[in-house]
Amino acid sequence: MRAVDIIARKRDGGELSRSEIGFVVRAYTSGEIADYQMAALLMAIYLRGMSKEETLALTEEMLYSGVVVDFSDLERPRIDKHSTGGVGDKTSLVLAPVVAAAGLFVPMISGRGLAHSGGTLDKLESIPGFRINLSLDEFRSTLVKTGAALIGQTAEIAPADKKLYALRDVTGTVACAPLMAASIMSKKMAEGITGLVSDVKVGSGAFMKSEDEARALAQVLIDIAHGMGKDASALITDMNQPLGRAVGNSLEVIEAFDALKGIGPADFIELCRELAAEMLVIGRAADDVPSGRLVYDKLIASGAALEKMREIIEAQSGDPRVLDDYGLLPGAAHQRAVPALAAGYVQSIDTEAIGHASMLLGAGRSRLDTPIDHGVGLSAESRIGDNVEQGSTLATLHFNDEALVEEATLLVNRAYDIGPEPVEPPALIKAVLR
Amino acid sequence: MRAVDIIARKRDGGELSRSEIGFVVRAYTSGEIADYQMAALLMAIYLRGMSKEETLALTEEMLYSGVVVDFSDLERPRIDKHSTGGVGDKTSLVLAPVVAAAGLFVPMISGRGLAHSGGTLDKLESIPGFRINLSLDEFRSTLVKTGAALIGQTAEIAPADKKLYALRDVTGTVACAPLMAASIMSKKMAEGITGLVSDVKVGSGAFMKSEDEARALAQVLIDIAHGMGKDASALITDMNQPLGRAVGNSLEVIEAFDALKGIGPADFIELCRELAAEMLVIGRAADDVPSGRLVYDKLIASGAALEKMREIIEAQSGDPRVLDDYGLLPGAAHQRAVPALAAGYVQSIDTEAIGHASMLLGAGRSRLDTPIDHGVGLSAESRIGDNVEQGSTLATLHFNDEALVEEATLLVNRAYDIGPEPVEPPALIKAVLR
Repeated sequence: MRAVDIIARKRDGGELSRSEIGFVVRAYTSGEIADYQMAALLMAIYLRGMSKEETLALTEEMLYSGVVVDFSDLERPRIDKHSTGGVGDKTSLVLAPVVAAAGLFVPMISGRGLAHSGGTLDKLESIPGFRINLSLDEFRSTLVKTGAALIGQTAEIAPADKKLYALRDVTGTVACAPLMAASIMSKKMAEGITGLVSDVKVGSGAFMKSEDEARALAQVLIDIAHGMGKDASALITDMNQPLGRAVGNSLEVIEAFDALKGIGPADFIELCRELAAEMLVIGRAADDVPSGRLVYDKLIASGAALEKMREIIEAQSGDPRVLDDYGLLPGAAHQRAVPALAAGYVQSIDTEAIGHASMLLGAGRSRLDTPIDHGVGLSAESRIGDNVEQGSTLATLHFNDEALVEEATLLVNRAYDIGPEPVEPPALIKAVLR
Repeated sequence: MRAVDIIARKRDGGELSRSEIGFVVRAYTSGEIADYQMAALLMAIYLRGMSKEETLALTEEMLYSGVVVDFSDLERPRIDKHSTGGVGDKTSLVLAPVVAAAGLFVPMISGRGLAHSGGTLDKLESIPGFRINLSLDEFRSTLVKTGAALIGQTAEIAPADKKLYALRDVTGTVACAPLMAASIMSKKMAEGITGLVSDVKVGSGAFMKSEDEARALAQVLIDIAHGMGKDASALITDMNQPLGRAVGNSLEVIEAFDALKGIGPADFIELCRELAAEMLVIGRAADDVPSGRLVYDKLIASGAALEKMREIIEAQSGDPRVLDDYGLLPGAAHQRAVPALAAGYVQSIDTEAIGHASMLLGAGRSRLDTPIDHGVGLSAESRIGDNVEQGSTLATLHFNDEALVEEATLLVNRAYDIGPEPVEPPALIKAVLR
């Protein structure tokens, strides 16, 4: 088998066999296939696409390039949720305790934030003492003990994906549904799950800008899961404005803790409730979505979800007192409002720019090795459709470095498009695929 | 300017600006853009194409990555011919002396053979003492002295193309008209020519398998030449069977010398005559193609073309006695006929396989650093449409290594498709584009 022949077949729109895909993944991971050949193949895949069978084969070959956690001896369903990434998306911090409190296992291997989108790991690390670098053995024992475990991707998980992702990033081949799906699923399937709910974001703060693209990706994610004998569903959700209000690590942790107490922005709580209901249905802990919503409501109202979060934090060496005293979380020394420059209705929000403003203040990183400031970020108070006065607050910046405020303010002001016409706010849940 | 943004624009079907193309070529040649990024861009170009303006810009940027010979002080037109490569194509060895004898300058920078197709340099090196590695100063003085000079590509000529071609070869991005055309023209334009006749081959022994592809490439070649203010035309010619009979270096040199004496296979002589006529018209040494043909006939009949070849060989340190005594050329110790396995009409010839058979005997190379045997090759006696008897000779192998004969025989037998139906031989000249 020669790499150049495989490249040529895909280039001409052909379908690659499982053994060809296996050869490519193994030879690339071992260094026998050079970066330049893989780059040509990735571009051919980007422009020619991949069939269901090819995408499944790619996922499985990347999955088995590394360790796959075996939880098959555990009797309970193991359900995770995956988000394609957005601004202010802290649902994992609510879903893990809720779904664990409902009696399912939630093994979550999460990533760090990159570019404008935040990462669950960075948020968790706002909690003093919280260890995300558990070994796979600790991952298992923590899961069995509390029902949930939240860790970072280890070097043992899908090394082929790690190498491929880095190459895609510099060759213009990131935004390609089969490649994205195979990358996501090769990592998620390594968690030893029995089912997965995908939250595919669409809009100005998401990687997918159109609902068609988002639906296509969601369908591929479901197809792969089904192809591997797993339960799956997907929500297409709006990312034309930040989810909730908080953007930035400590700020988002606080908003998530509030949600566990039943308070906070309606959009964020709605999404947590819908995703939890899906996870419960997929995990056979609820008969249907309406019953799943009732379970969610009950676990929040009874305090069981909050108690479960306390257990999870304790099990991973964090300080559980943060749940009662937000002052124990890293904070920002200063706050400043970004006032609206004109009166009118918020027509749209460039949510990616909001993410960049938060990143600029220190909450995110432009490169994987940049340190971040867990205390900073912003609260995006004004929402699409809001009627604002000149000078009223669009967002509040939380910062430690005065020198960064001017540019962040400019970014936020540019992100908010304010005009005279009333606007209908976008629907949060655009579609559910099963 | 970032390489990844340029890749993404081409990936999405956009047009690159001249400054972007200039940036890419310069940064790639200097090593700032990595092979993997260029590979992704090449695949995007392969699948999305390039406009006339982009192709011209790419050609010029590759051309000016190296030395461009300046013959602008010479008053005579400087005309070259380029062939896209085939099996048995030795026309350059006839055209250079004929067109020089007609009073034009013929500065030829040629390549080596690769895969199934032979190279003019390898053929020239069959001539004892012939130096193809002239310096650019010697190239000039030889051209002025004899009217023709035949040399190999030096490191100074289009280094960007050299690096790009090597990458295309291993990334499945060779057979792409704009990339092929830019590669060809960046080298040809470095010769300091005023006009170029392209011989675009189509058929089983050519890189282009369909006439549409060949016409598209021919048109791009003409467009680039015109874009650079040069005269140009192109012939689309048949490569569904070897050109002439001889395949292999000494054997082809002999067939070319014969043509200079007015003898040999009709198809080969016809193509030399047509290409020479085009070169003479392009170089204003003939008013039209019929007059050009008459000039060709006169220069052959008078012996002027043969005498010019003697001068050229002498000027480049070769032994001119080879023109009179073919025994001075490297030869093969043995000859063996490949007999037809069945009676019938020759339906088709897999000409690439014929090239491979010759290569297998030692006439060509599978890698650029393989030594070749100038004396070996084959003579393809049977042609499409010929009525052959069982056992009659399809081709005669000329070889030095008995161990290679069996496989070469098998290749030749497989290459000849013999059937009961009479077949019309293909036309040699399929189209002329100006």
